[in-house]
Amino acid sequence: MTSTPSPRRIQLSHGGGGVEMNQLIQKLFFKYLGNDILLRDEDAARLEMTGPIAFTTDSFTVSPRTFAGGDLGKIAIAGTVNDLAMAGARPQYLSCGFIIEEGLTFSELEQLVKSMADELAKSGAKIVCGDTKVVPKGAADGVFINTSGVGECLAAPNWKSLEAGDLILVSRDIGRHGACILANREGMSLEGNLSSDCATLWPDVERLLNAGIEVKAMRDATRGGLAAVLNEWANGRQLGIDVTQEQVPITDEVQGLCELFGFEPMELANEGTFVLAVPKEQGDAALEILRLSQPTAAIIGTVVEQHLGKVVLTSPWGSQRYLELPKGELLPRIC
Amino acid sequence: MTSTPSPRRIQLSHGGGGVEMNQLIQKLFFKYLGNDILLRDEDAARLEMTGPIAFTTDSFTVSPRTFAGGDLGKIAIAGTVNDLAMAGARPQYLSCGFIIEEGLTFSELEQLVKSMADELAKSGAKIVCGDTKVVPKGAADGVFINTSGVGECLAAPNWKSLEAGDLILVSRDIGRHGACILANREGMSLEGNLSSDCATLWPDVERLLNAGIEVKAMRDATRGGLAAVLNEWANGRQLGIDVTQEQVPITDEVQGLCELFGFEPMELANEGTFVLAVPKEQGDAALEILRLSQPTAAIIGTVVEQHLGKVVLTSPWGSQRYLELPKGELLPRIC
Repeated sequence: MTSTPSPRRIQLSHGGGGVEMNQLIQKLFFKYLGNDILLRDEDAARLEMTGPIAFTTDSFTVSPRTFAGGDLGKIAIAGTVNDLAMAGARPQYLSCGFIIEEGLTFSELEQLVKSMADELAKSGAKIVCGDTKVVPKGAADGVFINTSGVGECLAAPNWKSLEAGDLILVSRDIGRHGACILANREGMSLEGNLSSDCATLWPDVERLLNAGIEVKAMRDATRGGLAAVLNEWANGRQLGIDVTQEQVPITDEVQGLCELFGFEPMELANEGTFVLAVPKEQGDAALEILRLSQPTAAIIGTVVEQHLGKVVLTSPWGSQRYLELPKGELLPRIC
Repeated sequence: MTSTPSPRRIQLSHGGGGVEMNQLIQKLFFKYLGNDILLRDEDAARLEMTGPIAFTTDSFTVSPRTFAGGDLGKIAIAGTVNDLAMAGARPQYLSCGFIIEEGLTFSELEQLVKSMADELAKSGAKIVCGDTKVVPKGAADGVFINTSGVGECLAAPNWKSLEAGDLILVSRDIGRHGACILANREGMSLEGNLSSDCATLWPDVERLLNAGIEVKAMRDATRGGLAAVLNEWANGRQLGIDVTQEQVPITDEVQGLCELFGFEPMELANEGTFVLAVPKEQGDAALEILRLSQPTAAIIGTVVEQHLGKVVLTSPWGSQRYLELPKGELLPRIC
């Protein structure tokens, strides 16, 4: 007779502030995420920083926790690193707060923490403080991760600086993360190359800044997708944005899924795709840099002085329609 | 016939990144928490800061969400403000991440956000960035809040500086938050003055620093209580700590509840009570300052060169025992 040992699981005591929590921190979090600051300081990390500092936060509840191209750990790091990068800041220091449902296996938690460590390496950011809560079975779904981040600002992109004539670019083909989660939820086997775009964007941003590109506005197109970013810019700045539909890069897989389920690719979430605006004369240079990592990067539109506050999409046949700010349910727990 | 309108509730679309989420942010979060920075910046706040900066994070899952002396909103602010204060830092800028279960009423969320605003006013800290996720019914229990915070360091308390002879103080009577949650869970009506100690500690810390008290170590005694803090200090520094049991302030209500349910008051969580170590000659001055806000503040012990790494409790009858690092389940969802 053989018996299968039950997998080791997180207990309520791992969040109790005593012996078990200390062990979890030492043997799991410090093992993979440890660094001089995390190991040195108490609850709060002490950081030497100067000048304008970007500060951002995101909680991650993505379901399923593992998907083609990433998992909750990867997205929890990339998401906050990207928010810093989009603010023109070098991603330096991150916090990490776990809310864990009693019964999560250690092996899954360990895999998520490993993914976090791998993703941190891509930008050089470090986890410098953390918190662990364990809630009873049924009070959360598996595990949620919050990361917050700080970094020194090297640039100050802001949509308030947008002017008519500026060019709008996307860093790669859009809609992959949303389409990937959608396909997964619908139980479809993913044929072809449909995987999430989930990625750390700092290397691209660093190259743009190092090359002297004047990034006027920059945003990763997460929930609400490309449509949300462009509408917030147009509406905030009270200028118009013209988008040439056939310039917007969308793979056949994403387009096909959207047609099947009635989604608009421009509303689908991305997790490693950003939108930027640059002065007209720097469009080609910016595109060339973006294509170093993603050959599908493209110039998709222009800031204009017409249809103020609105985004207008021109189809290959010349017809025009407003691209609206997304409304309604979209996909819950996309990130 | 009259019909009672059903309360307005949070829908999945409030976390979707589109129209409904924008409205929630504008009409609720900005209404109560708005300030120049939150209203000015995009995803990431841009902060002018210099010198050593403290950075900390905490997620809050307390159940019940409202208790005698506070609620989830209050604790979510006080907790992170206190972590900054304990690092000797002025609480300046906080982030705020909500994970909301679909179906939470707007009125409850509004009450929590109001509590947050009230508690922020006590330290002058501001919410400068945030994130909202909504998960389907059953995937979380009501609402969880993560706050992270940054602030410029005015002092550098660290248990590594502890020396034999230093005095250990607590800022008020201990165990109130844990006892209050325990009583609530057991369905006991709270007679007497048993309410949570949940409070912002920055004003006390600021007074200590302004008075020139050399705070060698400082920690709020949250999960794991006084026992966890003293054990971490004694074990970390490899010195002993002697505690005189009758000097440790505990109210009759807390003591009584602990006897009834078999808890150790020194292991109960606090949410507005801190432990500090000062040089022997500054003990009385520090105590006087602490008593300005809490008359139960007390000098409870001494750092010694005996029983290295251990905390020893001396009873009124002269008997001695180790005060251990708490172990096991304690109270889940205490904070």
